[in-house]
Amino acid sequence: MPHIALPKGLPGISSGFAFRPETAAPMRELAHILLHEPGSLSPGERELIATYVSSQNDCFFCQTSHGAAAAAHQAGDWTLVDQVRADPQTAGVSDKLKSLLTIAGKVQQGGKHVTPDDIAHARSFGATDLEIHDTVLIAAAFCMYNRYVDGLATWQPEDPNLYAAMGERLAAHGYRTPSIKA
Amino acid sequence: MPHIALPKGLPGISSGFAFRPETAAPMRELAHILLHEPGSLSPGERELIATYVSSQNDCFFCQTSHGAAAAAHQAGDWTLVDQVRADPQTAGVSDKLKSLLTIAGKVQQGGKHVTPDDIAHARSFGATDLEIHDTVLIAAAFCMYNRYVDGLATWQPEDPNLYAAMGERLAAHGYRTPSIKA
Repeated sequence: MPHIALPKGLPGISSGFAFRPETAAPMRELAHILLHEPGSLSPGERELIATYVSSQNDCFFCQTSHGAAAAAHQAGDWTLVDQVRADPQTAGVSDKLKSLLTIAGKVQQGGKHVTPDDIAHARSFGATDLEIHDTVLIAAAFCMYNRYVDGLATWQPEDPNLYAAMGERLAAHGYRTPSIKA
Repeated sequence: MPHIALPKGLPGISSGFAFRPETAAPMRELAHILLHEPGSLSPGERELIATYVSSQNDCFFCQTSHGAAAAAHQAGDWTLVDQVRADPQTAGVSDKLKSLLTIAGKVQQGGKHVTPDDIAHARSFGATDLEIHDTVLIAAAFCMYNRYVDGLATWQPEDPNLYAAMGERLAAHGYRTPSIKA
């Protein structure tokens, strides 16, 4: 049961967003820019970073919804998502993305865990400053979203079909408008 | 030295904001709503929550700049800031704020650390659902801001006068516009 009187029937972060639309707007906007707008990292790659950090933070709602969005970018295939959650370094992703997932994992533990060697390693695979910046910020932002979702004890349904549909909508339309209707 | 080529001469988060204005806008907006807009918790109380979480995350720039903003709301007196950083439960703040700082400290460790008893305790001192929501989100958001600042290895000067001036500006004007000029 949620810790406060959140609107019923809205899963995960949607219930916090509906409770406090003022803070929802910038939180949606930030996710939209980081995960959905065009960039040199594909939206699918960025969703994998978000999913990985959410799984390290043990947030079921976030890792499942963003996992579904990442899968939707792979025609519904969860293989990469499951591999990245299990171990990014043996997943079937590029060396560059592996090096960025290492940085994201360090940020999840705390910003000071990121070392110059981590950065040099990512650069050796062609990572740009903007890609490194956005990786750090995606990881940092999901340390917020995950804590918001679990810190309010939001309702997190388990129905895979719900997440698959949510992932399709997020992959297609992004985060500016609600992906779940009450 | 920062991990990426951030604009020089801008301390802490200001350099990340200048590097990526697109993500800066919603990050500034969120801080402005959570810390500066009118609410039943005073801006000074909310700055203390932000300072406490930043100190638990060992982020020098954030705990010093928001500590300075909290002090500015106390006519420049750092007593409460130092007490809250040392131990919120013995600080000279209200029982309600102590109970909210307990929740914030739990969120800093991870969202699932917050218990129904923590919430009931805060409610027993009159905390509302909105105050609990905003406490959870302030704590969650500073887990983002702190990681962003340290994950990029931003320049964090030590001059107390710089932070005092920044705190005055933040306390007076909030977070929508830059508090530091290049």
